[in-house]
Amino acid sequence: MSTALLIKNTRPMGGETADILIRDGIIAAIGPNLTAPDATIEDAGGDLALPGLVEAHTHLDKSLWGMGWRPNDAGPRLIDKIDNERRLKRAINIDPARQSARQVVLSVSHGSTHIRSHVDVDTDHGLWGIEGVMRTRADYADIVDIDIVAFPQSGLLRRPGTLELMDQAMKAGADVVGGLDPCAIDRDPKGHCDAIFALAEKYGKPLDIHLHEPGEMGAFSFDLIFERTRALGMKGQVVVSHAFCLGTPDPDLVNPMIEQLAELDIGIMTTGPASRPAPPVKRLLDAGIRVCSGSDGIRDTWGPYGNADMLERTMLVGLRNNFRRDDEVELAFHVCTQGGADIMRLENYGLKVGAKADLIIVEGETITHAAVARPARRLVVKHGKIVARNGVCNRTAP
Amino acid sequence: MSTALLIKNTRPMGGETADILIRDGIIAAIGPNLTAPDATIEDAGGDLALPGLVEAHTHLDKSLWGMGWRPNDAGPRLIDKIDNERRLKRAINIDPARQSARQVVLSVSHGSTHIRSHVDVDTDHGLWGIEGVMRTRADYADIVDIDIVAFPQSGLLRRPGTLELMDQAMKAGADVVGGLDPCAIDRDPKGHCDAIFALAEKYGKPLDIHLHEPGEMGAFSFDLIFERTRALGMKGQVVVSHAFCLGTPDPDLVNPMIEQLAELDIGIMTTGPASRPAPPVKRLLDAGIRVCSGSDGIRDTWGPYGNADMLERTMLVGLRNNFRRDDEVELAFHVCTQGGADIMRLENYGLKVGAKADLIIVEGETITHAAVARPARRLVVKHGKIVARNGVCNRTAP
Repeated sequence: MSTALLIKNTRPMGGETADILIRDGIIAAIGPNLTAPDATIEDAGGDLALPGLVEAHTHLDKSLWGMGWRPNDAGPRLIDKIDNERRLKRAINIDPARQSARQVVLSVSHGSTHIRSHVDVDTDHGLWGIEGVMRTRADYADIVDIDIVAFPQSGLLRRPGTLELMDQAMKAGADVVGGLDPCAIDRDPKGHCDAIFALAEKYGKPLDIHLHEPGEMGAFSFDLIFERTRALGMKGQVVVSHAFCLGTPDPDLVNPMIEQLAELDIGIMTTGPASRPAPPVKRLLDAGIRVCSGSDGIRDTWGPYGNADMLERTMLVGLRNNFRRDDEVELAFHVCTQGGADIMRLENYGLKVGAKADLIIVEGETITHAAVARPARRLVVKHGKIVARNGVCNRTAP
Repeated sequence: MSTALLIKNTRPMGGETADILIRDGIIAAIGPNLTAPDATIEDAGGDLALPGLVEAHTHLDKSLWGMGWRPNDAGPRLIDKIDNERRLKRAINIDPARQSARQVVLSVSHGSTHIRSHVDVDTDHGLWGIEGVMRTRADYADIVDIDIVAFPQSGLLRRPGTLELMDQAMKAGADVVGGLDPCAIDRDPKGHCDAIFALAEKYGKPLDIHLHEPGEMGAFSFDLIFERTRALGMKGQVVVSHAFCLGTPDPDLVNPMIEQLAELDIGIMTTGPASRPAPPVKRLLDAGIRVCSGSDGIRDTWGPYGNADMLERTMLVGLRNNFRRDDEVELAFHVCTQGGADIMRLENYGLKVGAKADLIIVEGETITHAAVARPARRLVVKHGKIVARNGVCNRTAP
């Protein structure tokens, strides 16, 4: 069987019609009228070719996808949702291996070729989540790349024993050290930040910190993160997810934060949250800051939303940022593709000769058209091979 | 041919499995094991039955749907978009009859059975829009009901001659008098409000006023609207669309407005805008205020978003209001169904015996499930007849 794939009659990034030749998992050529007698040929029917979508922030271990509908009646506070979820995990058997496999198949069907997943580590469940998602990562390595963040969802210091489990998670193979609301959840901002930075240093791994804290509180936590990033020489090694405080309508609070994000090359993840202050995407990109996006939780005990479609996420990021012009919507698309690659430091990513052949073929006149229409993906290509067709992944989940 | 339709094996509002018998356009019975020898039988396969979706705020006359992709490069201000659109209408022939027909077919395919459309009236185009949408209303009366608002998109007093055209539009058959930003666009709040209320009084028609004005400015315009609603005895006859100022984070500004909305039975339309302050849906409903939603402009010169799916709008209203519990998401669904019926004063609306048979059949375990998954509608029934099946409308557009 040939390892070459020739995609005829496509429009890379919405430009002129061209063919894409893929050999040994690499984009070998892009241009008109390519031929390759040994290649399998696919006709793209004039559809767009776009780089593989990057799901840069989700929680693979705890989606309820496929488990039957469970009406959500969790309380209003963040801690209510955290406690509710921890209680339910064993009670209804939210098995991380099974659920991550289900979400991976869903995600790939929509064209995500790379996923960063935060995975819960807590004293009730130990490494159940990490082990489950690692199993899925191995089982589905042919269709997606997965980056695992060890995530202290229930708090790090407020629940003794969690830090030791985080250490074990890193030892077991997690790629990134996670953190969570040093003030609002862990109630010990110095202790929390010291601990996660120490763990990152110990394992030589980067950080990705959930920061939901609003306004001045979030800015204070950012200060602690800036201090440690600078002191430990961890420039370029830190990502802050959500970062609602960057959406505070107070330039005296926000401007100095943006300056330091740029100086320390700290990346930002935003889902484009409709009901919260949100990081200003265009402004951050203009300042040279890496910005990515993700689905966050998908149909889990936190809420019913989400479908793992990063083209839909492009639309939601666009809506949140009032992007109306095509050049603006393309910024949201950048965030859901190259931005995620920048955050995860993916090598040889992109729709260009010499890059890894991770791409999608989708109907649309332009990138913006595809983002707002979100049709089923005609083809999803990963490692140079077709892994989904017409919205259906060629792998199944338990 | 029988005029009776028997829908077997459905779950009305997500409840117990039942059948729905429709005769002469009316829901004649809902219950288990119904029989009707003369009826056409449809098996719903256990899917949900829900009332017809209500698109209570859109602009049928100016969607670009089906006209080929047109990159948007309009300027950032509201007036830039208004002027850009007015210039383009003839230049690229945004024909209101053709475009409204296209959007109607799209809308019905997604299960909307009632539409309120604001339709531009301005001195460059006269009644082109009103006449076009009236033609569509007549041509497609078998598949949807359309409510027409005469809408001074380019301003009422700042462009002399517009008020006279608005009068002609009402005479020609528009159902509702529209208004727009008395301060920010028309620059003469007293003059604007006096004029639109006078027109409403003259024709004995209700009002639906676009109000994008933020904060204190919007509250001032609301005051003028309250005064006139009270003075003219127009309680229950006024709707304010967008009403961003109700999302101001200042209870001293917002609380008195909400009290007067309730007192004067003024309805509110919100799209659930992700990038603007938004009316707090739950709070308004709790105060007994009628609240509806709509797609607003769909893929027009204002922006690329929108697909006319009011189940997707349910999701967007839910996301904007941070609705996570099922009972909360059902409020967003209420807004996109009964709320629209309340705003448009529809008679005999709803999924109940004796009501008009306007309903949808859609896959889902619960209402919330359907709203977040948004599958193609299995059936759309209007006036007791099937008008769309599996997401495809049985009428086409030019």
